[in-house]
Amino acid sequence: MRKGDGLVERLVERGAEGGRILLAVLDGLGDVSAPGCGTPLGEAAKPNLDRLASEGALGQHIPVAHGITPGSGPAHLALFGYDPVEYFVGRGILSALGIGFEVQPGDLAVRANFCTLDGSGAVADRRAGRIDTAKNAALSARLDGMDIEDVRVFVRPEKEHRACVVFRGPGLSGDVAETDPGHVGMQPVRPVPLAAGAEKASRIIGEFLRRAHELLAGESPANGMLLRGYAGYSPYPSMEERFGVRASAVALYPMYRGVASLVGMEVMPCSNRDDQIRAAGDALSAGSDFVFLHHKPTDSAGEDGSFEAKKAAVEAFDSMLPGLLACGFDVVCVTGDHSTPCPMKQHSWHPVPVLLRGGPQRCGWSSTFDEREAARGALGTIPAVDLMAILLASAGRLAKYGA
Amino acid sequence: MRKGDGLVERLVERGAEGGRILLAVLDGLGDVSAPGCGTPLGEAAKPNLDRLASEGALGQHIPVAHGITPGSGPAHLALFGYDPVEYFVGRGILSALGIGFEVQPGDLAVRANFCTLDGSGAVADRRAGRIDTAKNAALSARLDGMDIEDVRVFVRPEKEHRACVVFRGPGLSGDVAETDPGHVGMQPVRPVPLAAGAEKASRIIGEFLRRAHELLAGESPANGMLLRGYAGYSPYPSMEERFGVRASAVALYPMYRGVASLVGMEVMPCSNRDDQIRAAGDALSAGSDFVFLHHKPTDSAGEDGSFEAKKAAVEAFDSMLPGLLACGFDVVCVTGDHSTPCPMKQHSWHPVPVLLRGGPQRCGWSSTFDEREAARGALGTIPAVDLMAILLASAGRLAKYGA
Repeated sequence: MRKGDGLVERLVERGAEGGRILLAVLDGLGDVSAPGCGTPLGEAAKPNLDRLASEGALGQHIPVAHGITPGSGPAHLALFGYDPVEYFVGRGILSALGIGFEVQPGDLAVRANFCTLDGSGAVADRRAGRIDTAKNAALSARLDGMDIEDVRVFVRPEKEHRACVVFRGPGLSGDVAETDPGHVGMQPVRPVPLAAGAEKASRIIGEFLRRAHELLAGESPANGMLLRGYAGYSPYPSMEERFGVRASAVALYPMYRGVASLVGMEVMPCSNRDDQIRAAGDALSAGSDFVFLHHKPTDSAGEDGSFEAKKAAVEAFDSMLPGLLACGFDVVCVTGDHSTPCPMKQHSWHPVPVLLRGGPQRCGWSSTFDEREAARGALGTIPAVDLMAILLASAGRLAKYGA
Repeated sequence: MRKGDGLVERLVERGAEGGRILLAVLDGLGDVSAPGCGTPLGEAAKPNLDRLASEGALGQHIPVAHGITPGSGPAHLALFGYDPVEYFVGRGILSALGIGFEVQPGDLAVRANFCTLDGSGAVADRRAGRIDTAKNAALSARLDGMDIEDVRVFVRPEKEHRACVVFRGPGLSGDVAETDPGHVGMQPVRPVPLAAGAEKASRIIGEFLRRAHELLAGESPANGMLLRGYAGYSPYPSMEERFGVRASAVALYPMYRGVASLVGMEVMPCSNRDDQIRAAGDALSAGSDFVFLHHKPTDSAGEDGSFEAKKAAVEAFDSMLPGLLACGFDVVCVTGDHSTPCPMKQHSWHPVPVLLRGGPQRCGWSSTFDEREAARGALGTIPAVDLMAILLASAGRLAKYGA
């Protein structure tokens, strides 16, 4: 348990009129720079962000801990005020939530790849030639609904070769070997138990794979399945329970909808950026106090190593800002979940810039929003998990501690 | 236990090819300044450090906690990634390790001063006129090797009037009164037990002092001994176990070699600055992944209150940098263990500047390395104990946390 944990919850002014908060997450926002060179954020033409920067306060957050490169799940949980070590969640659960599968306490969720096995049973293609999603859906339907002992098995398509398998029944531990060998030419790993108490899960998973491979035997190229990212599910206290805010998510990608629903956010339907703006307004109209907006293109561009695409992704978000501001938010925070520096083409541990406009702030320090101004900003360098308290305070939602 | 403790260890990529790290500690580096005046670090002519500053990222670390002035032991442990509160080590053990004495688990190590006692048994000189080291060695040899009950007592010279006493035997607690009264004209304090379970140690120490004073009775001026800094020894997990790096130390002073060996570093032989550079290269050739270099003169100058000497000490280190860089380090970090401001002539609690060059960094922000640039640097203000994770990440030695 973190120092001071529980303090914010105790000070939340429930039922009082508080400001309405927008948390806009530009995925993978932070970057690094060569000497004399700027970053995509710094170089982007972003008049709306720059105006907010001059009207508000800047700072930077550390997603999980210094030096730690986070995955998307932990990074978002931290931004939502959930300690990402205490509230660790496995990829299987994130996948299940991301496709809208209603996981229940006790479920064991697993990420699955359709794969190609050769005549000897070795893995010939870990992604089965990236079969299309329709084919995936047909194959998943064929495997869906098995009963093994007292366990029901759900198989649902994600995208291309990726599916999600959920085992529902008593006593299922996730301490089982992942079956993806990670390389072609190798036999799948057997799902052996890795800890005491995992024998049942190991047996059920083994039987599931045996039957699945039987059912897929005639298929080409998807005649096998590899499992990884086993994750049990125990529900979290919601943001409303913890922080007294009704929260909604406007996110286009399943993964981020999944994390949002994990902390009790209402997931608003939307399928493009205009939808996101409309949905943010709808959420406020329906009584939400807190809207999480997820913007993916910054991360995708970083993963691709494209400085120009990342700059354009920032600019695309900037153009959404007038519409978002018109929804009537009192407090607007723009940040990333982690850094995805273009030169690295992957997530990194670097601090993430934060912009906070609304509520009383030390403002007028910066006329633009970039990594350098953020590092010198009024908010200082803060753990990501503490950002929520600052948002709540800025929205007038936290009482004084002590007399 | 700190938040996230154990997280770094879990993410260390063992056996993988990672970058090679130099941690150069300019002892007591940080300083304070009068309005309009610079600091020794800021005023020093240091072309090599300035170049690294522009190529890398700056920040500042808090050695133990805000407002806490650390001793050399805790300050170095923190830099090595060991929480200095959890891994507290007493001065006696540091002294023993510093002279190369091979302490064993369960040993009770104590710092000793030869002193002068007057006819009434009161302390006339707490340092026995600072007898020379040769005389110290002769007297220590005379006291060395006593057997008291089931305890063997080792007495070894340090420097001038300072010696180290190690009690080896079962059940020895360090909760015993220190015998140095701290002032002349007073009787030595009796080594009474200060907690339950310390009776045996109290008895053994009392008997050791009785016999020692008998053996020294005819001597002048060193006819007595004062004890302080009792410390038990329990070995720490090594840096290799925790962080997957083979670590070596190039330090000229016993104390720092001692702290380094406490965390499993190989202590390289060296007796001057040129040796240190050579030894750093030798360490890499022999397979080390991490080299700790200790540079004492900055601290000595700070303790003397000499701005000019401290500036010169920074310049002396700067002139070592080309040789050190030629060794082939991938990640170079230059910092201090704590601040020793010239106006204070002692250690202080102030943040300590950090320079980090190598691996992907936000760089090009500063063209020089000083306290002010460091406070505005990309790394932000970090706990010293977290620096190791940033070094490991910069060297590509940490996996991602979560999916």
